[in-house]
Amino acid sequence: MTAFPLPPIDRALESALQAKLDGLAKPPGALGRMEALAMQLGLIQQRLDPQLERAILFVFAGDHGLTQEGVSSYPASVTIAMVQTFLAQRASANAFARAADTEIRVVDAGVAAELTPHPALLDAKIALGTRNAAHEPAMTTEQCEAAITRGAAIAQAAAAEGFDVIALGEMGIGNTASAALVMHRLAPAPLSDCVGMGTGHDAAGLARKLATLQRAAARNAASEPLAVLTEFGGFEIAMMAGAVIGAARSKTAVLVDGFIASAAALAAIRLAPTVLPYCIFAHCSAEAGHRRMLDSLGALPLLDLGLRLGEGTGGLLCVPILRAAARILTDIASLDDVMRGNL
Amino acid sequence: MTAFPLPPIDRALESALQAKLDGLAKPPGALGRMEALAMQLGLIQQRLDPQLERAILFVFAGDHGLTQEGVSSYPASVTIAMVQTFLAQRASANAFARAADTEIRVVDAGVAAELTPHPALLDAKIALGTRNAAHEPAMTTEQCEAAITRGAAIAQAAAAEGFDVIALGEMGIGNTASAALVMHRLAPAPLSDCVGMGTGHDAAGLARKLATLQRAAARNAASEPLAVLTEFGGFEIAMMAGAVIGAARSKTAVLVDGFIASAAALAAIRLAPTVLPYCIFAHCSAEAGHRRMLDSLGALPLLDLGLRLGEGTGGLLCVPILRAAARILTDIASLDDVMRGNL
Repeated sequence: MTAFPLPPIDRALESALQAKLDGLAKPPGALGRMEALAMQLGLIQQRLDPQLERAILFVFAGDHGLTQEGVSSYPASVTIAMVQTFLAQRASANAFARAADTEIRVVDAGVAAELTPHPALLDAKIALGTRNAAHEPAMTTEQCEAAITRGAAIAQAAAAEGFDVIALGEMGIGNTASAALVMHRLAPAPLSDCVGMGTGHDAAGLARKLATLQRAAARNAASEPLAVLTEFGGFEIAMMAGAVIGAARSKTAVLVDGFIASAAALAAIRLAPTVLPYCIFAHCSAEAGHRRMLDSLGALPLLDLGLRLGEGTGGLLCVPILRAAARILTDIASLDDVMRGNL
Repeated sequence: MTAFPLPPIDRALESALQAKLDGLAKPPGALGRMEALAMQLGLIQQRLDPQLERAILFVFAGDHGLTQEGVSSYPASVTIAMVQTFLAQRASANAFARAADTEIRVVDAGVAAELTPHPALLDAKIALGTRNAAHEPAMTTEQCEAAITRGAAIAQAAAAEGFDVIALGEMGIGNTASAALVMHRLAPAPLSDCVGMGTGHDAAGLARKLATLQRAAARNAASEPLAVLTEFGGFEIAMMAGAVIGAARSKTAVLVDGFIASAAALAAIRLAPTVLPYCIFAHCSAEAGHRRMLDSLGALPLLDLGLRLGEGTGGLLCVPILRAAARILTDIASLDDVMRGNL
């Protein structure tokens, strides 16, 4: 098995961070989970004054051979149409990114078409879509490792470029099906607890999706993370798993949003458990199974607004919340300063 | 009773807004509560392309005679110290406002000291703190009406100045006690369900606070909103109630955050029920009773992050969420445009 060694996060600053938080001009703990978030950012960046201004969302796009089985109510061509919409700055994620002052780049992890170059498009294509995991492995081991490696490099380059937080989003028709299989094996959890409506399904579509995934799961008993990604993953899912690892290597916070990105984070955590403290879970998807997956990670998402779109939309809503959390440690006067009139 | 007439919000645009939302390049409803928020902003502003950029937080400050009974674990002098901290831009609300690109102004509704003029301080002082509601009415009817009128004028002036959303925050040692009495009479709800820890109390302090409020409640049976505010309110609470009414008159969204601002909104809604659709409830406070108060209004807050500070901190976290909601209606391509390649 390929190893992704990462030392555990250094918690030596924890007591100094807590003392600073408790000494601010407010009752201790009165900012609730925002204080926990400030602590997490301090530990990630290893400073008492974490900086969180520049944010970037990578939308990892890929196609899925599983769509041949009718696991989605949308045709695979929608992946390409949506990539064009992101690049034209007119998707939901672009709208939310503008409101959150966040840059967006689209990563072609494995869209089933050659895409025209564009300044906001990163070509990291592994192949023209995965194979049909209902009948054969979605990808080769080499492809899986390449996807993880490229994802890590993308995150590390973004951190080197000066981004303080990396948000993960995705676009790929059929990717809730792939993510459900990844969760089933890596949470682990019964498949029926992992399969949901996706972005558009009725009850009959859901039953068909579950039956297809049961056939796929019966094909191979993989439970080791790299094997699970190879058998059942998507290129965008493997690449997001790599991005989580890359962000952690760079001591950079990573915003994990929604069901599919969470499945990728789950794979990253199974590959390298020490990445967990770098992950901030953004939004609990309306997609069935997401809450259970987050529970299996002991993760409590920040928001619950009924989003079930993907694209990183929930993560974008959290960027300003992270900015506020960091400013707790940099902008608020100490109680001492207030009492001595030293403002 | 003084009347605050306001015509019901015009819902004629509702079907056109829904059709626009359903025609966007995403599965219908996939943005969950964000779409409901976009709809609300469209109805408030009476346009299919609501604008939500410029945001202001008013921190209404006032002192409470009830503090003479030991209802707070902090001395009343903290109100003044915190007003100075806001003006020095170093309170929690300032930190969050910077992260949310929101202006802050402090309103002296009734601080128990003469304050030095400051460009970010509005002098709307009714008196040097309320009287002790455990023994006598907190204010006169004239003072109550003046507070409401000034609050309405402040919100209307902000709307005229071009602010797209008005967030309400407060600072006032003892004001959870006053808010609990207002909720008790106007929700209505048993007093024991309305009393919580405030920003810093232990169990003994809580029992003392409840006993004091029971004595205060026994003094007067008021249940009509103006009388309740007069008997038990604070100047900042009455002024925030007025601000809700003023925002609604100006067809401007108002962000209601936390237990005390919600008690003010409750009073405004009892005075003028048609203001409700202009209110956006930001954060469910960790303060006991807040959830029940919101339930009594049929209101579902956007966030639940364990905040129990006040100052409008929860509302500030929601400002970027509102900006994102408005952009759903202005920035996202229609499905039709995507399908025709018209991007």
